Amino acid sequence: MIRKFIFGNPIETEALVDSQSIQGMSVEKPGQGIPHFAARLAGEESSWELALDMGERDIIYGLGENIRGINKRGWIYESNCTDDPVHTEGRRELYAAHNFFLVDGRERLGVFVDAPQKVTFDFGYSRRDRLVVTVDPGGFVLYILEGGSSRQIVREFRGIIGRSYIPPRWAFGYGQSRWGYMCEDDIRQVVREHRKKGVGLDSVYMDIDYMEDYKDFTVNQERFPDFPRFVQEMRDQKVHLVPIIDAGVKIQEGYPVYEEGVKEGYFCKKEDQTEFVGGVWPGRVHFPDMLNEKARAWFGDQYKFLLDQGIDGFWNDMNEPALFYGEDHLAEVFEKLEEYSGQELDIQSFFAVKDLVLGLAGRKEDYRTFYHEYRGQRVRHDRVHNLYGYYMTRAAGEAFDRLKPDKRILMFSRASYVGMHRYGGLWTGDNCSWWSHLLMNLQMLPGLNMCGFLYSGADLGGFGDDATEDLLLRWLELGIFVPLMRNHSAKGTRRQEFYGFDHAEDFRGIIGLRYGLLPYLYSEFMKAALTGDMMFLPLSFVYPEDPEAAGVEDQLMVGDGMMIAPVYRQNARGRYVYLPEDMKLYRMRGVDSLESQVLPAGHHYVRAELNEVLVFVRRGHVVPMSEGGCCVEDVDMSSLRLLHFVETEGVYELYYDDGERKDVRLEEGITRILVRADKTVETEGLLSPRCQLI
Amino acid sequence: MIRKFIFGNPIETEALVDSQSIQGMSVEKPGQGIPHFAARLAGEESSWELALDMGERDIIYGLGENIRGINKRGWIYESNCTDDPVHTEGRRELYAAHNFFLVDGRERLGVFVDAPQKVTFDFGYSRRDRLVVTVDPGGFVLYILEGGSSRQIVREFRGIIGRSYIPPRWAFGYGQSRWGYMCEDDIRQVVREHRKKGVGLDSVYMDIDYMEDYKDFTVNQERFPDFPRFVQEMRDQKVHLVPIIDAGVKIQEGYPVYEEGVKEGYFCKKEDQTEFVGGVWPGRVHFPDMLNEKARAWFGDQYKFLLDQGIDGFWNDMNEPALFYGEDHLAEVFEKLEEYSGQELDIQSFFAVKDLVLGLAGRKEDYRTFYHEYRGQRVRHDRVHNLYGYYMTRAAGEAFDRLKPDKRILMFSRASYVGMHRYGGLWTGDNCSWWSHLLMNLQMLPGLNMCGFLYSGADLGGFGDDATEDLLLRWLELGIFVPLMRNHSAKGTRRQEFYGFDHAEDFRGIIGLRYGLLPYLYSEFMKAALTGDMMFLPLSFVYPEDPEAAGVEDQLMVGDGMMIAPVYRQNARGRYVYLPEDMKLYRMRGVDSLESQVLPAGHHYVRAELNEVLVFVRRGHVVPMSEGGCCVEDVDMSSLRLLHFVETEGVYELYYDDGERKDVRLEEGITRILVRADKTVETEGLLSPRCQLI
Repeated sequence: MIRKFIFGNPIETEALVDSQSIQGMSVEKPGQGIPHFAARLAGEESSWELALDMGERDIIYGLGENIRGINKRGWIYESNCTDDPVHTEGRRELYAAHNFFLVDGRERLGVFVDAPQKVTFDFGYSRRDRLVVTVDPGGFVLYILEGGSSRQIVREFRGIIGRSYIPPRWAFGYGQSRWGYMCEDDIRQVVREHRKKGVGLDSVYMDIDYMEDYKDFTVNQERFPDFPRFVQEMRDQKVHLVPIIDAGVKIQEGYPVYEEGVKEGYFCKKEDQTEFVGGVWPGRVHFPDMLNEKARAWFGDQYKFLLDQGIDGFWNDMNEPALFYGEDHLAEVFEKLEEYSGQELDIQSFFAVKDLVLGLAGRKEDYRTFYHEYRGQRVRHDRVHNLYGYYMTRAAGEAFDRLKPDKRILMFSRASYVGMHRYGGLWTGDNCSWWSHLLMNLQMLPGLNMCGFLYSGADLGGFGDDATEDLLLRWLELGIFVPLMRNHSAKGTRRQEFYGFDHAEDFRGIIGLRYGLLPYLYSEFMKAALTGDMMFLPLSFVYPEDPEAAGVEDQLMVGDGMMIAPVYRQNARGRYVYLPEDMKLYRMRGVDSLESQVLPAGHHYVRAELNEVLVFVRRGHVVPMSEGGCCVEDVDMSSLRLLHFVETEGVYELYYDDGERKDVRLEEGITRILVRADKTVETEGLLSPRCQLI
Repeated sequence: MIRKFIFGNPIETEALVDSQSIQGMSVEKPGQGIPHFAARLAGEESSWELALDMGERDIIYGLGENIRGINKRGWIYESNCTDDPVHTEGRRELYAAHNFFLVDGRERLGVFVDAPQKVTFDFGYSRRDRLVVTVDPGGFVLYILEGGSSRQIVREFRGIIGRSYIPPRWAFGYGQSRWGYMCEDDIRQVVREHRKKGVGLDSVYMDIDYMEDYKDFTVNQERFPDFPRFVQEMRDQKVHLVPIIDAGVKIQEGYPVYEEGVKEGYFCKKEDQTEFVGGVWPGRVHFPDMLNEKARAWFGDQYKFLLDQGIDGFWNDMNEPALFYGEDHLAEVFEKLEEYSGQELDIQSFFAVKDLVLGLAGRKEDYRTFYHEYRGQRVRHDRVHNLYGYYMTRAAGEAFDRLKPDKRILMFSRASYVGMHRYGGLWTGDNCSWWSHLLMNLQMLPGLNMCGFLYSGADLGGFGDDATEDLLLRWLELGIFVPLMRNHSAKGTRRQEFYGFDHAEDFRGIIGLRYGLLPYLYSEFMKAALTGDMMFLPLSFVYPEDPEAAGVEDQLMVGDGMMIAPVYRQNARGRYVYLPEDMKLYRMRGVDSLESQVLPAGHHYVRAELNEVLVFVRRGHVVPMSEGGCCVEDVDMSSLRLLHFVETEGVYELYYDDGERKDVRLEEGITRILVRADKTVETEGLLSPRCQLI
């Protein structure tokens, strides 16, 4: 059951496919009957506070991309898309605004706070037993979902926000990226090394350096003299190039995107109707008004420039939008710095100088100085800040539907809001090469799935700071299960391609497992997308009656038949694992190197050497694997190996399609694989694979 | 067995009590026979590199205050005392330089790199199987210790570096601190709230705001109008005030410390013989030349100002020395900023401006612009950088011996080098209110002990960022075992006194346990100090034959009879614990609330609610507890309760003394407590406590 409450005059976000289809109740004043919550006006006019008392053991799931555990209780979070790459435990804001959460305890309810402005979630931070949501002025819509299991509540939510984005199947292959690939030869080397050592690879990502002066929809002619030819050269090696697109458009005479945008009035403007100027990678830029329907269509059409050259995948970046500085404020800062110059600084003045410079980036006040034309209204940016990345990605997604109606195009974004999941996936932004971020990667996945972000992933090995070989290996051992499997790192950090390390055979084995597991992973992804289900689930979503399962923060259910328990501690040669039921453990070093063992329900310490992955198969379940391959198109579906824990009978419904078509139907893609107690296998449906039990 | 190798012309650090007593071999050129290591000149003249191949399972312990695990393998560390408060996994330098490590695997050896300049420890970072130590130019002494167990090697090392600092017993009580206590009433409130709620308290710390304009050895007269009276008022309530002392001396006419220092030439000078000017809390400061014997004695004598007013404890801060800016370079920066002003900045120029300002603090080049007079020689600061904090604390320690020969004075420092452990303890600097820093606190303890730093601890609850009630509680549950038990937090963060949270009874219970456990903790501390042993040991130091124990990173042996396993994850209601042998678990909520249970050797999941501490007692061991109290002097030694896991017989040798005397002897303080199989107890020695088995 979904109930809808309207506070003030909210701005329509288009998070829901059809928000009008649900009848809402207008909340005019505090004390009006909102179920579960005590609602009151907080401080500022039309800023609301919703409070809920929690039971000692209540768990809070959700909030999508965020720090901390699967259980979000005990911290305060802000939905306020922010470009801040150092995701320590003390942060409150990340790149995304995913305002759905689920309280599971004395009561079970799903809550979606549909608000494009800043929202604060105090989940037992101020008081251990109290949940308080505070919404900045501007009105919002509250959805309360109840009835059934946690998983059912999520499915109901997913039903109203619409089908998740589906990428082409090649985008489930391994991708190598680094901020710093400068030219054709840099990329050729990546491909050569992977192919030479037999390490899987489907894509190479192109960070900002492929552009001319960081200008969107340009390719540097010196470093990529014949780009379409180079794109084809890579395709001949079964590699897709995936260029980055930034939000800001460089201010430069003669640059058509800039000139056209100015001419048509497509950039965000200040109060005085002149274009807002910010500083990001290209230097001075304007921000396209992605919320303006016409500007959005125009920006989306720009992707054609690269599509026409053979590109079939993109990542949208810097779309919080990130701001290194606002030009007007920068001038003020320089003026103030001049005042300090020559003075004898006391410590207060010294810190004032420091704060002036440190305070330039992502300054809240700057976001209050420009406007959007949105649904016929002029709206100040901060009122709709959290929609910007969503609408940039929507610009692309809508353009792809026009330009490539029959072909899936890879698309994922950094900033996002619920609703964007229909147009693209996301990566979780600039993480660091920290073991704690490996665990955080795992812990984010269920929350992302709840908000419809199925095609998502973190930078494997970590973006900032220096990675070690063991960190990268362990991280890949999680990454092989995650739809967006990309190794990415920052300029200035240690190189992170596998061949920069000593044990190529370990990487070949682990990355090979991705291609081995592809039949299962693609199938589970597609089933989740087409039925509105989650692919990554907290254990408690599958074993709701098990109190021990509710406390597990470092294992996940992956699809229907599998549980994973990655090692995320340096120097560990194993880890503790909780089994809510008897399971069969497959300890894998590669597609051809695995051993299995049935473990009883309960707590276990399980050995896992640095090059070993633990896969747990549930009783009565079958997990199909391929024989592997070095890219997705080489994965042979005619011959499957079946992980299985079958005593009486086990069935797996394998989904498969051409990996390109947009118009897909679940029932058309199913192959039913039946494993009987006597170890015979029968298949029926789309495919007729040879099957081998392993 | 200790072997000593001299590379180049090293500067004597006085890390050892008598470095001349060990015969050394001069290493003139690479290839000369250093056991275990391949030594070669690296890059720069007289910069050496020592390399060692590691076995797959070798563990590296040590490096004292550092990030990452008990096992230091898999990262690169730098000994280069640095004021950097954000201790993420990517950091290489912290506040201290603790150059002792122990390799345990195919071979077992202790290594001490006695070098006051920067040393880099690549412990399997560049290559998983290789350990490389690189010492910056300037010569150094290498000590290699072999023979016996890990614990024996550490004891041998401790034997040559001398007896650890012993604080007064009251310093084992709970201390409350916050940067931001401004005046008498702020402190009175702290004391009142603790006494009112029956929460233990022995000390309140005074951060920089007690001073007049941050001038060392001054007290703000407005806010503390009669300081000696206030000190006495606090002593009447059994509370000790512990003021901070910073390294830099404010440049201010009329300020006697400044004027005398200039007159006598006691400050560090630049090449041109003028005093170096840096910026820290007081604004412009000079740095006393702590390495100069006369200046050191002079600086030490300044503590008399506060000793005379009744103060009996201090903490030395900012003594890396921290540098917000060097004055000469600040002028250069302002000049450059002026050049940029008014220009249209491209992105490179923008980052150049940002880097100019961000690069001011702790700038390496600034440390090369001033000099010390050390042992009759003029030495550039960077050559002896890591000694500064050591010698500042030595200044105090030597002064206390002169000024208070019969009374222990509390002293601990932020920056340190091996050798300083004879003059004071340390706290581990500006950590953050992060769960990961709770674990890091635990993981640092054995390494600190190896280098003689027994009286040490981290800021409980975390200094930077905002703490939650559960984090503080869980952190205190570790903190009650740690000699320096202090709750400290930064200005601008959430208040962290227990009474800012909702569950005073939980804090009363947990902090009460500290006073309950005091007989054991003080006794174990003193035995470790007087015999050169460790108080906190990795499990493998006690169970060297147990391969599982070697991998345990989140439990510690505390003294002879106890193992601890704190919970360090938010929302956890228990944790996994590995027992190398059968142990008796005491689950405690306070001195009067505990339950026990014998657990067999092996892996366990053990329940531990938020207000519960797990204490494991080893077979055949006895752990004496008091009945608690609200301060150390109220702990009643005439009545003891005995935690015990005794089947045949168990003996505990309890050490006790007056808690003040400096001249202590182990054998004079022992009370032998014998628990027999029939549950009778017999005591013999210094004390005659009534004993009750619990």
